[in-house]
Amino acid sequence: MLTANAYGATSPTEPLAPLTVERRDVGPHDVLIDIKYCGICHSDIHTVRGEWGEIQYPLVPGHEIAGVVAAVGLAVTSHAVGDRVGVGCMVDSCRECASCRDGEEQYCLPGNTLTYGSIGQDGTITQGGYATQVVVTEDFVVKIPDGLELDVAAPLLCAGITTYSPLRHWGAGPGRQVAVVGLGGLGHMAVKLAHAMGAEVTVLSQSLRKKDDGLRLGADHYHATSDPSTFEELAGRFDLIINTVSAKVDINAFLGLLAVDGALVNVGAPAEALPVNVFSLLPKRRAFAGSMIGGIRETQEMLDFCAEHGIAPEIELVSADEVNDAWERVLASDVRYRFVIDTATLG
Amino acid sequence: MLTANAYGATSPTEPLAPLTVERRDVGPHDVLIDIKYCGICHSDIHTVRGEWGEIQYPLVPGHEIAGVVAAVGLAVTSHAVGDRVGVGCMVDSCRECASCRDGEEQYCLPGNTLTYGSIGQDGTITQGGYATQVVVTEDFVVKIPDGLELDVAAPLLCAGITTYSPLRHWGAGPGRQVAVVGLGGLGHMAVKLAHAMGAEVTVLSQSLRKKDDGLRLGADHYHATSDPSTFEELAGRFDLIINTVSAKVDINAFLGLLAVDGALVNVGAPAEALPVNVFSLLPKRRAFAGSMIGGIRETQEMLDFCAEHGIAPEIELVSADEVNDAWERVLASDVRYRFVIDTATLG
Repeated sequence: MLTANAYGATSPTEPLAPLTVERRDVGPHDVLIDIKYCGICHSDIHTVRGEWGEIQYPLVPGHEIAGVVAAVGLAVTSHAVGDRVGVGCMVDSCRECASCRDGEEQYCLPGNTLTYGSIGQDGTITQGGYATQVVVTEDFVVKIPDGLELDVAAPLLCAGITTYSPLRHWGAGPGRQVAVVGLGGLGHMAVKLAHAMGAEVTVLSQSLRKKDDGLRLGADHYHATSDPSTFEELAGRFDLIINTVSAKVDINAFLGLLAVDGALVNVGAPAEALPVNVFSLLPKRRAFAGSMIGGIRETQEMLDFCAEHGIAPEIELVSADEVNDAWERVLASDVRYRFVIDTATLG
Repeated sequence: MLTANAYGATSPTEPLAPLTVERRDVGPHDVLIDIKYCGICHSDIHTVRGEWGEIQYPLVPGHEIAGVVAAVGLAVTSHAVGDRVGVGCMVDSCRECASCRDGEEQYCLPGNTLTYGSIGQDGTITQGGYATQVVVTEDFVVKIPDGLELDVAAPLLCAGITTYSPLRHWGAGPGRQVAVVGLGGLGHMAVKLAHAMGAEVTVLSQSLRKKDDGLRLGADHYHATSDPSTFEELAGRFDLIINTVSAKVDINAFLGLLAVDGALVNVGAPAEALPVNVFSLLPKRRAFAGSMIGGIRETQEMLDFCAEHGIAPEIELVSADEVNDAWERVLASDVRYRFVIDTATLG
């Protein structure tokens, strides 16, 4: 076993604090990664605060991990010491169910192993990437292409794949009208990716405060949802709406913006149920769907796509002792557009 | 103009009563139909009672029309006097929008003309099929194949196409697990159709009261939703769930029965919103969707499919003066499985 410096939670209410985590010995199929950067995701906060169910403490969050391979197990063939690699929301899955066989480990039927807060291979609770090192089985480690810096690559491992996967699954591309609800960490990636895929992209944000940003990121149109005329003007417009907002929204108003056979796909997960009026769905065969991250193969495809198209998130680097403040700013939507922890500051 | 005997409503609260309706003169593209049978659909009741919005009275409901062509306009080429024909929920549409060009007139963007309660070609309110005759533009008249009797053909024009269309759209067929929620007029057609398409069919009904019927109609399995173990046993099972229930159900419980990429499709339209927990959708990329009848081309395809596979609804014939009682029995779910009015009794 080896010990890594980390920053984690000891209770749902106390601020995060420095601590250490033990990592399992590098097994034959394992990769030891020196973590260089780890993104801060809203779900880190939900999970650590127990809002998505009870958890065990201490817990180190973080599932947007970018680093360099420090050691590999004897049987590892796909990664080598010195490789630039990433780890996202999952570190293992059953490998045998229909979803895993399809390369969609995010929908593993018996349930995959999350990067933090799951039971890992060694029977202990997995601990995430707000840390200096991590050991991950090789199949759940992806390569970061040369064209991507490690700091901006980190948020792609969750915010990137979470938006890339539904854009691909629901066919974002030339001739398709795509709307992105919310211009935060996920939303700004959705805009960049949908634009690069060739879709006509509209941002639907509460206000026009970030309009200049939205257009610069690749949006063709930008509308304020606080303006009721938005919902009249854009009625029936979109083939696909990616809703990145984790708070409760008037879902029927957004469903009304879908064209025939359009889909509104939630990638955010509000705690409260959203009351769906079936009359919002029937008259245009609309769908309200959900999508959760993406598979490992698709994550690699997304990273390659980003490198090829020069796409990277806009980030603000923070040191470990700034993480608690960063969390408060995430909750206040005061970040453009993703905080990334420089793990060199974990000492 | 010609006058037809009919049975209709003069207010949202009074029983239906005999009355007459005027039909427009047969124009160059029109077909005059002697109505032989008209099915009773739950939405007749919702509409007439003003539960789906204010309407004008008097109103003659009925959109499951089967009859014989009595006259055709000079330009009509697709139908001839003596042909056995049907008319469903629509009698016209814009013919020009993307949906109409795709043959999906049910999703006509400017809005189609419903068989009753819409503004018709002549500027008057359309009046439905609880009547002895109707005039309909030829493109919205379908042929009833020889293998189908007119009385059982009638309910196919709404209950048949409403279930056939989503089964086709979401790919019911061999190797697919399909559940049908509710074994009423729509549900019993969904079971027969899905079975004929080759899917493995499960009925989810409140109780096991109609189990023998369900299995006889073609279901492979039958479960009571009043039994909580149903939701445990069938979790993650279905590729497609057709929900025919117009009342409020625990939609999250049903969403939990969907497999990865499964869709729960409402063809019933409850007045109340259904609170959807986004966590019901995310972990398996599930969708909650709606579907509304089907296009004219698909309606013809459905009739031909039914004739080919020997599929017909189970009906109870009623006379005009039994319609009010029949409505009460529809509301009490006391019908196996569709009432059909013998219009010869309209005098």
